[in-house]
Amino acid sequence: MIFQELRINPTRLISRVERLGKIGALEGGGVCRLALTPSEKLGRDHLVAEMKALGLDVAIDPIGNIFGARKGRREGPAVMLGSHIDTVATGGLYDGALGVLAGLEVIATLNEGNIETDLPVVVAAFTNEEGARFAPDMLGSLVFVGGLSLAEALDIVSIDGKRLGEELEAIGYAGTDQGPEEVAAYFELHIEQGPVLEDEKVEIGAVLGVQGISWTELTIRGRSAHAGTTPIRLRRDAGLAAARIAAGVGAFVRSMGGDQVGTVGASTLTPNLVNVVAETAVMTVDLRNPDEGLLQVAEAKLTALIEQIAGEEEVTIERRSLARFEPVDFAPALIETIDGTARVLGFSTRRLFSGAGHDAQMLARIAPAAMIFVPSVKGISHNITEYTEPADLANGANVLLQVTLKQALPTNGEEA
Amino acid sequence: MIFQELRINPTRLISRVERLGKIGALEGGGVCRLALTPSEKLGRDHLVAEMKALGLDVAIDPIGNIFGARKGRREGPAVMLGSHIDTVATGGLYDGALGVLAGLEVIATLNEGNIETDLPVVVAAFTNEEGARFAPDMLGSLVFVGGLSLAEALDIVSIDGKRLGEELEAIGYAGTDQGPEEVAAYFELHIEQGPVLEDEKVEIGAVLGVQGISWTELTIRGRSAHAGTTPIRLRRDAGLAAARIAAGVGAFVRSMGGDQVGTVGASTLTPNLVNVVAETAVMTVDLRNPDEGLLQVAEAKLTALIEQIAGEEEVTIERRSLARFEPVDFAPALIETIDGTARVLGFSTRRLFSGAGHDAQMLARIAPAAMIFVPSVKGISHNITEYTEPADLANGANVLLQVTLKQALPTNGEEA
Repeated sequence: MIFQELRINPTRLISRVERLGKIGALEGGGVCRLALTPSEKLGRDHLVAEMKALGLDVAIDPIGNIFGARKGRREGPAVMLGSHIDTVATGGLYDGALGVLAGLEVIATLNEGNIETDLPVVVAAFTNEEGARFAPDMLGSLVFVGGLSLAEALDIVSIDGKRLGEELEAIGYAGTDQGPEEVAAYFELHIEQGPVLEDEKVEIGAVLGVQGISWTELTIRGRSAHAGTTPIRLRRDAGLAAARIAAGVGAFVRSMGGDQVGTVGASTLTPNLVNVVAETAVMTVDLRNPDEGLLQVAEAKLTALIEQIAGEEEVTIERRSLARFEPVDFAPALIETIDGTARVLGFSTRRLFSGAGHDAQMLARIAPAAMIFVPSVKGISHNITEYTEPADLANGANVLLQVTLKQALPTNGEEA
Repeated sequence: MIFQELRINPTRLISRVERLGKIGALEGGGVCRLALTPSEKLGRDHLVAEMKALGLDVAIDPIGNIFGARKGRREGPAVMLGSHIDTVATGGLYDGALGVLAGLEVIATLNEGNIETDLPVVVAAFTNEEGARFAPDMLGSLVFVGGLSLAEALDIVSIDGKRLGEELEAIGYAGTDQGPEEVAAYFELHIEQGPVLEDEKVEIGAVLGVQGISWTELTIRGRSAHAGTTPIRLRRDAGLAAARIAAGVGAFVRSMGGDQVGTVGASTLTPNLVNVVAETAVMTVDLRNPDEGLLQVAEAKLTALIEQIAGEEEVTIERRSLARFEPVDFAPALIETIDGTARVLGFSTRRLFSGAGHDAQMLARIAPAAMIFVPSVKGISHNITEYTEPADLANGANVLLQVTLKQALPTNGEEA
């Protein structure tokens, strides 16, 4: 393979991660760049400046996705390297940022080598991947692939009551450009965010696909009452109903075993006072499984649980789907390319499913897509202690570089 | 009995309730006058003005308790009629306010009749009875009876992070006066806040005492992690632990039956996001029973539950007592006076325990104390739909007037 000896610059890659990590940095480590907030705007400004410094043509589309294009010898479908730079409220430096910044590092390496590719290479940062401020998650890539209309997306209201369209305008990222018309292949380098690679001492994960995701919001309505004088039999306690549902989710997820996971990450009582029986509770249930059939089993268990508790606690429970994605399989040829390339580079590899949702699963709707995973220390992510070893970051970026060359160079490579 | 035909003015009493109810009024009904907030300050200003208009000598003590004194023929221990005007965040018009405003109505009735009592009659409004903003509840009366030092009380920090002493200063109610040195008898008229009187169609409750109260705050610390990629076996989910404890409290309270009640009214997760396993949960547990032994049984069950869940969910749980009051018995002679007087006035009566804490239980430490209950529609309180029929308000105030006369007039009444 031509350019097989080409490598990214590890020091420069780490510097990229550290510099973006200073934007929205939290005391004690980690970052908070919730989508379309002032700190995320600063992250976007930084990214756009870096893209321009590398000579990329920057395009912002109407949902705020950022594309930086390096021209190819011909105008054809783009090889796209992407991820996101928004984070959860207590996020780490690597989730999302790595895929975008490694894309920049690939561009920098191609520039240094004066390497002209046949196809354009585009680095992409998609809007609101985390879904921590606007539901659903993976919103920017969903709109990009046509899975949700722009008008609907702009009308989404954030957890802090702001309309997405106005928040985009407010930070100056309601663009008028369009992203690449056609994508030849999409690669996303990402930290695993789970413990498998580290446990098995594997350096590179070739990702088979993404587990299915089901997010439900429950609004439980009871009756507020004095906590001292209202006999138990006369109560309609929304807080107790919420607790029993959350505990029940924990129990049925454990009983299912296997790859099933379930989380009640958010739960808010009103009025939330020590001596008042809660009148309402709003809670979320996050269920995931790589097997669609099993995910549906979990959803059915949730439905039965809700009906049981609503009856027993004499409360009403309104449910709303915040997100529902079936499991996604990545392109077999790209999985094979990633796995084979990593082994040629001397890395140990493993194929595995992703436990988290990623923009790649949206891109898979319109183009061959696949992901490269590198190990997460202790499997921790969405946490300020999220960490990946510098060597692993560099390994992943080198795999990204090589698979990009394979897709973007002419098939026979003789003109390069 | 002399003055046995004397009655309060029902229209004027309702007007008192309605006028105070406009201060801190919520859309849709009810009021929010959390202790020492700007809206409660306005309520205090209104009360002080009403007291002065009735010719009372107003004294504000260093914890902000308000006393309005009507002189007696001699300087002796005072007959005190009191309660509180602070409310929970979504409170009603009657809880607390009735006891204070009926006290004013008693004074107005005495004034109209040019009735000179032997002992002074004092109307009292105690600071922070609800405990919704500062723990413990019944704080002002607790300090008044010497159960908590002023210095400690002033250092208490509110749920919104403010020091009590500074909040008192800010609203101008850090007084320098002292309340009555000696209390001959304390009467508190209050809505039942429970369903018993209404269910049994009884007009006046003679309160036997107050059930014991145990408030505990739990701080649960786990580890935040990605909700999709962290296998269940590797989680330390503070939210799941909190839910299991809240559901467990609900279960053991039901299994104990009898008069035991238990409530998890407040529970807050951090970071409280759909796709992040909660790192911390802070929750409160409110346990009450009129029997001290059974209350201790409930507390022991809570302790066992906490230890079990901490172990099973691999979280740490820190516990802090927010309040602990043993059951209180009221003065038998005053209970008999209330019950007998009400029957003489033609009302049906019943003796019962209070399910809620009241300032009267603090006063009972230093003086004979008792309470008069009137029915609560549907037993609802700490809720904007809290309601008591006008006739019941008037009945309760007339009982208050008559028992006040019995205590404050000379024993033989011949000089009146």
